[in-house]
Amino acid sequence: MSKKRTIRIGLLGFGVVGQGVWKNIEKNRLALEYRLGTQLEITQVVVKDASKAREVLVPTGSYSEDPARVLDNPDIDIVCELMGGTGKALELTRRALNQGKIVVTANKALICEHGEELFEIARRNGGHYFYEASVAGGIPIIKTIREALVANRFKLIFGILNGTSNYILTRMEREGLSFDATLGDARKLGYVEADEALDLDGIDAAHKAVILAYLAHGKWVKLEEIICEGIREITGQDIEIAGQLGYKIKLLAVIERDFEANKLSVRLHPALISKQEVIAGVDEVYNGVSVTGDVVGTTVLIGRGAGQDATSSSVISDIADAVFMLQGGASPVISEEDEATHQKLADGLELALGDELIGRYYLRIHVRDEEGVLAKISDILAKEHISFATVNQKELEDGTAKLMVTTHMSSEAAIIRATALLNEESSVIGAPVSFRIFDPGN
Amino acid sequence: MSKKRTIRIGLLGFGVVGQGVWKNIEKNRLALEYRLGTQLEITQVVVKDASKAREVLVPTGSYSEDPARVLDNPDIDIVCELMGGTGKALELTRRALNQGKIVVTANKALICEHGEELFEIARRNGGHYFYEASVAGGIPIIKTIREALVANRFKLIFGILNGTSNYILTRMEREGLSFDATLGDARKLGYVEADEALDLDGIDAAHKAVILAYLAHGKWVKLEEIICEGIREITGQDIEIAGQLGYKIKLLAVIERDFEANKLSVRLHPALISKQEVIAGVDEVYNGVSVTGDVVGTTVLIGRGAGQDATSSSVISDIADAVFMLQGGASPVISEEDEATHQKLADGLELALGDELIGRYYLRIHVRDEEGVLAKISDILAKEHISFATVNQKELEDGTAKLMVTTHMSSEAAIIRATALLNEESSVIGAPVSFRIFDPGN
Repeated sequence: MSKKRTIRIGLLGFGVVGQGVWKNIEKNRLALEYRLGTQLEITQVVVKDASKAREVLVPTGSYSEDPARVLDNPDIDIVCELMGGTGKALELTRRALNQGKIVVTANKALICEHGEELFEIARRNGGHYFYEASVAGGIPIIKTIREALVANRFKLIFGILNGTSNYILTRMEREGLSFDATLGDARKLGYVEADEALDLDGIDAAHKAVILAYLAHGKWVKLEEIICEGIREITGQDIEIAGQLGYKIKLLAVIERDFEANKLSVRLHPALISKQEVIAGVDEVYNGVSVTGDVVGTTVLIGRGAGQDATSSSVISDIADAVFMLQGGASPVISEEDEATHQKLADGLELALGDELIGRYYLRIHVRDEEGVLAKISDILAKEHISFATVNQKELEDGTAKLMVTTHMSSEAAIIRATALLNEESSVIGAPVSFRIFDPGN
Repeated sequence: MSKKRTIRIGLLGFGVVGQGVWKNIEKNRLALEYRLGTQLEITQVVVKDASKAREVLVPTGSYSEDPARVLDNPDIDIVCELMGGTGKALELTRRALNQGKIVVTANKALICEHGEELFEIARRNGGHYFYEASVAGGIPIIKTIREALVANRFKLIFGILNGTSNYILTRMEREGLSFDATLGDARKLGYVEADEALDLDGIDAAHKAVILAYLAHGKWVKLEEIICEGIREITGQDIEIAGQLGYKIKLLAVIERDFEANKLSVRLHPALISKQEVIAGVDEVYNGVSVTGDVVGTTVLIGRGAGQDATSSSVISDIADAVFMLQGGASPVISEEDEATHQKLADGLELALGDELIGRYYLRIHVRDEEGVLAKISDILAKEHISFATVNQKELEDGTAKLMVTTHMSSEAAIIRATALLNEESSVIGAPVSFRIFDPGN
């Protein structure tokens, strides 16, 4: 098969990531084209509003508001969907894949919600759907799981997949700031998405967890089916107590497979994690993913999880893989878009329910500072066979107290029942807060 | 191009890694073949002594002492050279590549010494030479640099590439043991290579540094040209003092490129590194590599750097890439075997001399405990414009003392001259020992 001398690329969307792709292809064009053995040309850039001023200047002829100039252009080999969102982006991705084009995306929400359909369209039409930039920005987690660790089955994948929430937790820990104060700073720095729930309620990271679960296990999990809890409930005091006990509090995505029971647990929640774990040391806006394969053991990847340059590095890596596909005419080694394969790998695989979890827990209970209140709380927990591992009590000025306890091993079902009982107890003020203690067990 | 239903593999060598490849392909055959869309068959296994008992049993018909049954067998698509060494392995690799076969190797010494020739043979004959397992065991550092970070130019790559020396340093640090005591334990555990210089004098890690330098910069550097210092000079006291100053001592490979001056520094030596750096936290037999690209920023990969399973995970990943090549008929995205490309990327790139280094240093000087000795030492260093940042003095029972000092920024040339001067000073006993303080500066 003869190789094309020039590969033509169309960009849908020219925001932060789109401009980054342009800028960085220009920056390292020489090295990149040598490595790829071909020339790259960004032939068309489609935007919603062509009159808007942008940092990166594009030749007038390649700039338009008309997606057809990318989608219906037979010269364009690779379409990069960098618009974001699940409306127009879905429609244009469908159109591109239906024409057998290769689409490169950074759009985690779109894959999470419509991946099953889009990979199927790609497979049916001989195109391909690449998505390295959709999870953990510049960290090559997709390629690593798909190709580098192809020999493995994945017992456990966990990590930090949202930089904004990690930044907030890091500053709360280091400076003893409150959640609200840190959030204010993060907003000023432009770190928080316009839809704040994406960062603060864990939805962005949950999107990525769903994508990794599909990649590793061939099963599409719905966001509504999984535990998805953000960082709003975490106080500086929780972080402080956790620190004294040897833990950090991190917003963790966890994808855990029990091969014997053929169950898959996918979840996203704050957790106490031992400072000894490498992932606990991933601070500020960095992301980190720990992958445990049954052959390779545990491999950890840490890097920038967002930002123009890191994300465009991953988009360009997908463009390079697409060039390889186009030059070789083969689909990549691991056809993750091949539903048949994935369905077989996921045969009978069931999603574990949230309350099936077993582990240790951290509870924060606000109580009236009365005699015997600790015994009362302890009795209630004992009914559910929950026992204390550690207890911290802080008296407040208003005659109430906060109890911060960690438990021995317990089931999540018992914790749920116990917190409901505590809620009814007259000595307890407001709802108790619980965080899971995550132990990767390696 | 029609896809082959079965890909046939021949193994040259059936030691720890070879048996691991067999065992782990069998273990996850179902998942692997689904992912690859093809069947894998290890058709022939060639060993030096077929009568030797091995853990993994192979059908008699596929087992022999005759390399021709792999090399001259047109049915065999992929040859895995897992014999090690640079004698017979060189001859057989040449023969395989001369026939246009794809060769997968874990043999870092062979690539380091003969890579330039072997990649050239592969390129000329349309074969390919894969080597993920040769650097950092199960960590996919080759694929990451070659493919995932294709958009980048690499200012700095550094890390821990030898698990045995890292294990020794970790135990010395944690248990306050001497180098000799820890080495004894490492020997008992079978961690130390038969040729101990590979682990203790840094040669194994230097081989890997040379490979990474070639991969990232297209330049073959000779082992004799680079700084290669092992861990034998490190004492428990060095580790202790470094710890008090906020450093760990690690055996680091460093590949640093100055794009302005077009100079490349490749080196392997013990170094003090701030505990704040992720790589400083990579302990025991683990390896870790930090890659700073001009687009993606810094990405760190940590994992098992050796061992049967981790290494075979990487060999199988290369087999998967080879399957992709065979099915697609194209060479991979980044043709690192393409000398022309690499020579252009490395145009005019010069190797920096060791004494061009600039940095901070740690010096251990054994002195007679006389009045004014510190002033004398300080004067000698001042002549070379070296000034102290910290000083620790430990008196010994025999009336001598050890001075452990760290310096402000200095040139390596000055340190070399100063230690020569110290050597001639009557108050100084024996040769001063110096370690570099490594600051990745990010």
